[in-house]
Amino acid sequence: MTDYTQIKNYLESHLDDSLAELSRLCAQPSIAAQNLGMQECAELVAGMLKQRGFSVEIMPTEGSPVVYAERKGKHDKTLLFYNHYDVQPPEPLEEWDSPPFEPVIRDGKMYARGVSDDKGHIISRLHAIDAIIESDGELPCTIKFVIEGEEETSSVHLHEFIEVHQDKLAADVCIWEFGGVDHRDVPIQYLGMRGICYVELSVRTAKIDAHSGLGGSIFPNAAWRLIWALRSIKGTDEHIRLPGHYDDVVPPSERDRELMEAMPEVSDELKERYGVDYFLKGLTGGVDLRLAEVFEPTCTICGFTSGYQGEGGKTVLPAFASAKVDFRLVPNQRPENVLISLRNFLDEGGFEDIEITYLGGEPPARTDPDDPFVALVIQTAEPVYEQPMQITPMIGGSGPSYPFIHTLNLPVATAGVGYPGSQAHAPNENMRIDLYLKGAEHIARIIKEYGSSDL
Amino acid sequence: MTDYTQIKNYLESHLDDSLAELSRLCAQPSIAAQNLGMQECAELVAGMLKQRGFSVEIMPTEGSPVVYAERKGKHDKTLLFYNHYDVQPPEPLEEWDSPPFEPVIRDGKMYARGVSDDKGHIISRLHAIDAIIESDGELPCTIKFVIEGEEETSSVHLHEFIEVHQDKLAADVCIWEFGGVDHRDVPIQYLGMRGICYVELSVRTAKIDAHSGLGGSIFPNAAWRLIWALRSIKGTDEHIRLPGHYDDVVPPSERDRELMEAMPEVSDELKERYGVDYFLKGLTGGVDLRLAEVFEPTCTICGFTSGYQGEGGKTVLPAFASAKVDFRLVPNQRPENVLISLRNFLDEGGFEDIEITYLGGEPPARTDPDDPFVALVIQTAEPVYEQPMQITPMIGGSGPSYPFIHTLNLPVATAGVGYPGSQAHAPNENMRIDLYLKGAEHIARIIKEYGSSDL
Repeated sequence: MTDYTQIKNYLESHLDDSLAELSRLCAQPSIAAQNLGMQECAELVAGMLKQRGFSVEIMPTEGSPVVYAERKGKHDKTLLFYNHYDVQPPEPLEEWDSPPFEPVIRDGKMYARGVSDDKGHIISRLHAIDAIIESDGELPCTIKFVIEGEEETSSVHLHEFIEVHQDKLAADVCIWEFGGVDHRDVPIQYLGMRGICYVELSVRTAKIDAHSGLGGSIFPNAAWRLIWALRSIKGTDEHIRLPGHYDDVVPPSERDRELMEAMPEVSDELKERYGVDYFLKGLTGGVDLRLAEVFEPTCTICGFTSGYQGEGGKTVLPAFASAKVDFRLVPNQRPENVLISLRNFLDEGGFEDIEITYLGGEPPARTDPDDPFVALVIQTAEPVYEQPMQITPMIGGSGPSYPFIHTLNLPVATAGVGYPGSQAHAPNENMRIDLYLKGAEHIARIIKEYGSSDL
Repeated sequence: MTDYTQIKNYLESHLDDSLAELSRLCAQPSIAAQNLGMQECAELVAGMLKQRGFSVEIMPTEGSPVVYAERKGKHDKTLLFYNHYDVQPPEPLEEWDSPPFEPVIRDGKMYARGVSDDKGHIISRLHAIDAIIESDGELPCTIKFVIEGEEETSSVHLHEFIEVHQDKLAADVCIWEFGGVDHRDVPIQYLGMRGICYVELSVRTAKIDAHSGLGGSIFPNAAWRLIWALRSIKGTDEHIRLPGHYDDVVPPSERDRELMEAMPEVSDELKERYGVDYFLKGLTGGVDLRLAEVFEPTCTICGFTSGYQGEGGKTVLPAFASAKVDFRLVPNQRPENVLISLRNFLDEGGFEDIEITYLGGEPPARTDPDDPFVALVIQTAEPVYEQPMQITPMIGGSGPSYPFIHTLNLPVATAGVGYPGSQAHAPNENMRIDLYLKGAEHIARIIKEYGSSDL
């Protein structure tokens, strides 16, 4: 058994420097949805990797560039880290207790947009690499980084990027961009992600808004059109009405159910954290709630805008309406099929006037919970977190794991600095500093144990 | 027959001064919905009336103050002008060709928010009064002004104001805040207005937004809740489903139909101006389109807001959604009944979570098309517009005419500077200067002829 005392000492004694580096990274806005600060952030990340002796390329895509980095190690095998430098939009700004791009530490947490998703993960990995180089003078295996800038906008160019550069990106195992503990501080191995098909539905019924007193009885109303179209897709029963939408759904296996049963009860914690009074479809908790959360397709309205939205009243009949709609997909659904099926469904329902803009998608993908690299990641967590890592076979979120799992043919495991209170995608996003240190140690152990393993 | 040469000469030779005064009034924002500039605008209007020898009071209400003005005339009878100094919000600002509160004249039109609705009407009346005083040294009858500041937010305090001050406001006849010509430049006498019940429907399903990957399968979604609730109120058949909603509807009379039949065909003009491809309920034009436009109850979504509305995608599950909804009412519907019926309907449909905020309402009200004062207003238009004024017995819009017609017991007729291209409530609101001059002359003739009539 390797002694990790020196590694741990390094991580602890250099914590402030590492957090200062993270703070610099979080202070650089990189909002993919608004194309804000992307090149600047890519250059900042590239510089941080170069400092560690990585050969780095800022590789263009049709969207934000990918930061690719590689450093050879003692053994001829390769661990690939997938991360992303882009962040979610910070709105609504008024709900932040401190400005989203002015990182601050309070009560043992760093607050900033992107600190948890995904910049804390990136810098914690660099922190672990620094500790290994300081301790061993070299890396035990080759390490590659693929750090993209469009994860929060559905990684629209990453599939093609991986397809084109699959020789350069060739690796043996992959650590995903996130990971961490659950609400009990138990480390979780997240395996498998739902797919997604993200669209904007919009309709224009006139060239200008009309006075509602004039047009109300006789003009089509864009807001009504869109509401009716959306309602035709899903009603209060939550069933998605696109024909054949559930045909390719693979229900959870017995092994999935067994793993989900071992997971803790989260219903009260979820209700408390989000302030929801009830769950959909009559669910109250237990394994059925947990299975529904991740193994079911969804259709979520993420945003809707039309007409006057200010204070008080304005008697206007809106000429335009649009909605952002997110379909989460489970194996073996495919985003391209959803797009086709949605267009046909709207046309057949008399909603030819509704335009569909494809904003991005991912197929669902899973890694075998019994893969040996997954086992290594689980084993290395125990000494850090002082308890066994639990496996969740599937998560509700989406990410571009399909090309890593199916194009690069990698087992994908998770390890990181996240926790359920991180408010990722919401105001007051934050990262716990105690978990930052643990996450870095876990990464250091994964690298060293993988390097010296027979895998 | 009175000779109006002197009046006309005055109006023409002092046109630039009058437009400069109008420009000063339009440059003062007075957005009732945002409570912006209301007191300042009331004081500006009050000052303009004082200059003309009116005794003026800025009378408080629970909302924006009412500017009340009175000047005695030769004969002991009273003409009351109802106007409003508030304007609609100017949004969307990017669609204006010049800033909404920086009035400019181009191509024979003045552009500014409020120039047509309703500040042009106010100043054109003052211009007419100036001409009469200049010509005759006095007014032929007492003139009162009630100029409120909440017309665009449903005149929420005006009913009570009129109720409380009905002795002070006592009059014999009333000229309404608007009037003008149709798309053929034919002067129109607009009689009767639909009522309105304007509400905001809102729902909060959680205390914070959630990541759509987490909550999509299990958390209630505020946008979906509101969409389903709205859809339950009205579907693509345009029928409003509140029980009993049509019970009190008085269909148009034979006289109404006859008057509407005499109105011109507007279907092509409406399609062209608004850029709509079709009318609702299979209507194509003719008297049926015109009757539907004004004699039918409506339910219009004026605005809808929820979740992320910026560029690109954000995978968020919104905790809050709200919509502005405008029910137009026809005789003898009542806004208070709609509120009760809406609450019951939502509750019975399982939408107890939808909150209703009442933003204002008006009952519908009509003046008899055969009233003698209406006849006088029609007769005085002909020499100005060089053609007969047409009567439309009812318009689609709403206003606080109920307390004038039913509390003060006045016949209410219209005369003014409006035209269909004025873009009232929309970007690039404008007023034609040729019609401004005609409107002022018509008002001068109404005052003088009414003063010397037997009415």
